[in-house]
Amino acid sequence: MTNSIGANADRLLPADPGTRQIARELLAEVEHLPIISPHGHVPADWIADNAPFPDPTALIVSPDHYVTRLIHASGVPLEQLRVGPGPYSVDSRTAWRHFAEAWPLFDGTASGYWLRSSFQHVFGLPGDVVDGLGADNADAVYDAIAAKLAEPGFRPRELFTDFGIEVLATTDDPLDTLEAHARIAADEAFTGRVLPTFRPDPYINVAHPEWAERVDRLTAEAGDGVGGYAGYLRALANRRRYFVEHGAVSADHGVRTPLTLKLSAPEAEALFAKARRGEATTSDRDAFEAHMMYEMARLSAEDGLVMTIHPGSFRNHHWPTFEKYGPDTGHDIPFAIDYTVGIRPLLEDFGTAQDFHLVLFTLDETVFSRELAPLAGFYPSVYIGAPWWFLDAPDAMMRFRSAVTETTGFTRTSGFIDDTRAFCSIPARHDASRRVEASFLARLVAEHRVPEARAHEIIVDLVDGSPRRVFKL
Amino acid sequence: MTNSIGANADRLLPADPGTRQIARELLAEVEHLPIISPHGHVPADWIADNAPFPDPTALIVSPDHYVTRLIHASGVPLEQLRVGPGPYSVDSRTAWRHFAEAWPLFDGTASGYWLRSSFQHVFGLPGDVVDGLGADNADAVYDAIAAKLAEPGFRPRELFTDFGIEVLATTDDPLDTLEAHARIAADEAFTGRVLPTFRPDPYINVAHPEWAERVDRLTAEAGDGVGGYAGYLRALANRRRYFVEHGAVSADHGVRTPLTLKLSAPEAEALFAKARRGEATTSDRDAFEAHMMYEMARLSAEDGLVMTIHPGSFRNHHWPTFEKYGPDTGHDIPFAIDYTVGIRPLLEDFGTAQDFHLVLFTLDETVFSRELAPLAGFYPSVYIGAPWWFLDAPDAMMRFRSAVTETTGFTRTSGFIDDTRAFCSIPARHDASRRVEASFLARLVAEHRVPEARAHEIIVDLVDGSPRRVFKL
Amino acid sequence: MTNSIGANADRLLPADPGTRQIARELLAEVEHLPIISPHGHVPADWIADNAPFPDPTALIVSPDHYVTRLIHASGVPLEQLRVGPGPYSVDSRTAWRHFAEAWPLFDGTASGYWLRSSFQHVFGLPGDVVDGLGADNADAVYDAIAAKLAEPGFRPRELFTDFGIEVLATTDDPLDTLEAHARIAADEAFTGRVLPTFRPDPYINVAHPEWAERVDRLTAEAGDGVGGYAGYLRALANRRRYFVEHGAVSADHGVRTPLTLKLSAPEAEALFAKARRGEATTSDRDAFEAHMMYEMARLSAEDGLVMTIHPGSFRNHHWPTFEKYGPDTGHDIPFAIDYTVGIRPLLEDFGTAQDFHLVLFTLDETVFSRELAPLAGFYPSVYIGAPWWFLDAPDAMMRFRSAVTETTGFTRTSGFIDDTRAFCSIPARHDASRRVEASFLARLVAEHRVPEARAHEIIVDLVDGSPRRVFKL
Repeated sequence: MTNSIGANADRLLPADPGTRQIARELLAEVEHLPIISPHGHVPADWIADNAPFPDPTALIVSPDHYVTRLIHASGVPLEQLRVGPGPYSVDSRTAWRHFAEAWPLFDGTASGYWLRSSFQHVFGLPGDVVDGLGADNADAVYDAIAAKLAEPGFRPRELFTDFGIEVLATTDDPLDTLEAHARIAADEAFTGRVLPTFRPDPYINVAHPEWAERVDRLTAEAGDGVGGYAGYLRALANRRRYFVEHGAVSADHGVRTPLTLKLSAPEAEALFAKARRGEATTSDRDAFEAHMMYEMARLSAEDGLVMTIHPGSFRNHHWPTFEKYGPDTGHDIPFAIDYTVGIRPLLEDFGTAQDFHLVLFTLDETVFSRELAPLAGFYPSVYIGAPWWFLDAPDAMMRFRSAVTETTGFTRTSGFIDDTRAFCSIPARHDASRRVEASFLARLVAEHRVPEARAHEIIVDLVDGSPRRVFKL
Repeated sequence: MTNSIGANADRLLPADPGTRQIARELLAEVEHLPIISPHGHVPADWIADNAPFPDPTALIVSPDHYVTRLIHASGVPLEQLRVGPGPYSVDSRTAWRHFAEAWPLFDGTASGYWLRSSFQHVFGLPGDVVDGLGADNADAVYDAIAAKLAEPGFRPRELFTDFGIEVLATTDDPLDTLEAHARIAADEAFTGRVLPTFRPDPYINVAHPEWAERVDRLTAEAGDGVGGYAGYLRALANRRRYFVEHGAVSADHGVRTPLTLKLSAPEAEALFAKARRGEATTSDRDAFEAHMMYEMARLSAEDGLVMTIHPGSFRNHHWPTFEKYGPDTGHDIPFAIDYTVGIRPLLEDFGTAQDFHLVLFTLDETVFSRELAPLAGFYPSVYIGAPWWFLDAPDAMMRFRSAVTETTGFTRTSGFIDDTRAFCSIPARHDASRRVEASFLARLVAEHRVPEARAHEIIVDLVDGSPRRVFKL
Repeated sequence: MTNSIGANADRLLPADPGTRQIARELLAEVEHLPIISPHGHVPADWIADNAPFPDPTALIVSPDHYVTRLIHASGVPLEQLRVGPGPYSVDSRTAWRHFAEAWPLFDGTASGYWLRSSFQHVFGLPGDVVDGLGADNADAVYDAIAAKLAEPGFRPRELFTDFGIEVLATTDDPLDTLEAHARIAADEAFTGRVLPTFRPDPYINVAHPEWAERVDRLTAEAGDGVGGYAGYLRALANRRRYFVEHGAVSADHGVRTPLTLKLSAPEAEALFAKARRGEATTSDRDAFEAHMMYEMARLSAEDGLVMTIHPGSFRNHHWPTFEKYGPDTGHDIPFAIDYTVGIRPLLEDFGTAQDFHLVLFTLDETVFSRELAPLAGFYPSVYIGAPWWFLDAPDAMMRFRSAVTETTGFTRTSGFIDDTRAFCSIPARHDASRRVEASFLARLVAEHRVPEARAHEIIVDLVDGSPRRVFKL
């Protein structure tokens, strides 16, 4: 028996003893299945190079905006956590001490759960050390983790294997050579699959500061000599094909809203030209982006890349922080979105298209029962994206299943998406998700709503079948 | 003891043993009370003619868009389920096989619960046969149900009585002669009440393709010789009176949004004329519909018909499906609505009107705690409509009670509404609702928030008192 | 053992026996801690004068729009409850009888819980008398309460002490002399702290019928002889300082929406002048109010008053009721709001300002997980306001903790706010909140998500630490 919650076999399982017992048995079906991660942000270089991870701060704290944001909210400047391009006034160990002192802030949070889990299960720290993380033992824990990182077993590929990862998708620029992916694929000694994902946001979002420059480069490099809007579309199609050839299964789109629009070719061309001249208004930009979502769906219906949409985040909400530290520094804030009206032009033409898969994510929970479940419950092409970002947490995942299941059952959701750059948290995230699935299903069994034998089949399908089917793996 | 979840006496009751015991006792109070169904879509002809139901597919699958939509999402064309006007390339038995093969899609869904329940409780199929419905036993189950449908005890009136239905409201066109209702009422051997409901949507919604034509017919048939807007209003009032004389207790309105508007007579007349000329803009149409909701409230305050509003569904979302299969084919998709601002003009004038009852439904759950509970907790005329459509499911009904009770208690909700054309699912739907009410109340008793003796009174009022009171039955 | 739910030691605690036991122990940590009430509506005069309370109706029914609204919804005119300025056609005892007869309406409501609790715990009524409140015992209960109110121990200051109140904030007009507060502070025999709160709404909301008149008075009295917009701003700053000198810790803003706007001085001045001339359009008014929120933040960052924002209520929804009975009569109805975009201009400049505290409240629950948790999880100045008004109820408070904790943990919320003018309900409200905190934390302990020892620390911080820290007490 252990008092450590991170190691407790029943963690995240429901309190009611009868339901917990059902959940335990359901969990046993999937606890050790391989990890399939069809969307995330781990750099392919890490796996390709297999260099040792740097210090604990650089691995665990500085790049993880889930972690740095909450410490920032408590009054610690991001610079003290070595966020952003630097130079920094503090060394890694000092930044780690800030983190250790802030440890109680993470009680009850998803990040706290993942950190605790990786400290105990990946780095082997005792539960009481993790519980008591703080000023007193900050240095000792830093040293312990640093020592582990120096061991050969803690190189990226070794962890990849230890974590039981079968597939890991990265997120990549359309002009990326995918050289790292090629190196990994070419190494027969390493059996894990590391797949690129086509993410063209800065080439599509006219408001992006580098849009024009990137569009020029894209067209020059991949437009087959064609210029203008036609060359731009040609180049996007060509680069998508290149990604497909290098193993990509999906194209991801981080858009402001789920708006889609079907413009005529002349209309689109005129907007494109206006934007290239730097004259696009805000509504021009929205219209162009909405139209490009339609175009991306058209290309996905042709080349087979699963289309995933991540809308509804106000990026870089605090401009002074963005200017000093850059993007992805903890102040992307969700807002209310509409899918029903916005996605309609796209679905009119591609909602029943053969083999077209469209995975719709949301940070606005109200959309789950109101819009996504009804959409996915009719359109063969639509799948409901798993709870994402702030919603990737036990209670939120439970609310998600409760919100969508009664309308769509268990076959129209994407499977778990970890969406992370925090490599060491991947097992904890998938483990948490599996525990929530077991808990949700256990309640349905306890309430005599799903036969227990079926629940055992369903959980395997949720964990293993859904991501393979939805992402064509 | 049975392993069959459909027959389990504790189905849908909470897992905690203490709470479950309280719920069982609460359920016992209401489990066998008569069914009162003040809003639904069963055709009156079925009861009037009392003809045998056709085959299982025509009864259970093809007309139920809750069922066909999820099979469609899995890739089966609606035509293969004999949806729409036909002709069909498959016979009923083949369509049934598609359904049987799709059976696992319904695990965890409300439709799955109702189907399972009617298979076991109405058609007497054994639990293991229902659990194992699929390609292997599709034909056998089809034959078993078809055989039942041929029995005299399975005619509509016999089922009506067996189901314990006391009142069943239909939904009818304003120009319906209500001849079927009259026939039923005239038959002294049949004691069930089958009441018409006045549903004037196509006469009010200018965007409806037949609006002008229907308005002309309405005015010609019931306008007392008066033309134009005045004749139109007169005809609506006359037909409402005709419905009242034939037993109607409510008028139902399926509108796009809950917007209401009080126009002056000249303004309304001008809009009407513009619409009749086919020149109404989108905002003209919205204004006219909003104004007509105000007018319908005015008439309800006069003639006593309970006014029910069902807003917030984007009808016929996938136009190609609508064109091929018609309306009500599974792609009406909810969107976010506002009641607080929109309904205000109507409530300003009729919110405290004597004996005016207004039942407000929503498909946007966020409205329950934010708008409907506060509105119904102040205005004597406002009642909160029961969870409807996608929300008519155990978890969603629980969320509803949790969202509204703390603000309005148990006296301001409409009572359960099955809103269905799936006749054989009616007992299962009411049974599920009663189980959820028992479960919700049991938790409040277990948490010492409602005295147990009061909970026994409250559940009877929720199931039996509320619908009688709200719908003036 | 008692059957009375109001006196049951386990009231509001979770049903599952194991979780309940954990909750009991957590509750024991905080059950008897002093009450800190940093926002409410009890008049300071009551405490300063320490006069006996008038009759039961005037104390418990007429001024509490939570209570009168639900009785009104059942068809009793507000006049019969002695709401508004009078004269009334009924005496207090008759109004009380209406209340007693309406008692079953309150089953399951937050108001019912508070009333029951104060009847039993403050007035010492037996549980069965409270359970059976109605026509039969209305007079006897009235007399019993009236007798208590005549006792010396039932004067406001004695109750203040009995209730264990340490700090009670009132809500005050900027031109209030704060004489009552001064009297209380000067009395060394009374150790309770009664603090004023600066609430400038009618001076900022141009739509307020008395805006121009009030602005003139404000500027004349406190503008240091300066006129126009500059004098107006000067006067606001001066009165804020006056409040600070009299113990105020916060400034509260009841605005329509959370919109903020940074106008240039000339733009603001022009809008102000236009509004003073009575020529402001609706969008002018919105812009001016949004700008003034920015200005209030600027002043808060200077003078240290915690800024609290209460948006999203459509005030005086039923105009005929407002005209007859005045404001705060039960028909302020919430609507959907946006914080992410609206609050941004303010946060751009003050989101990381030293010692600036901004507490954001909402009546739209969807904002908790989607916007407030992410905002408070990044900006050091932002705290999430406790569930307010219709959301100040057990289930709603549970949904709140579930919605925000996984993103922000337990350190970014305001602590409980009773926000009430119902003085005798204050202990019941704080008690209910503590029971909900214990129940929420108990589940996290039972699910092995928070170590039990930490939960014991966290609950003390939620109840006692948070309000002191957030409100600088």
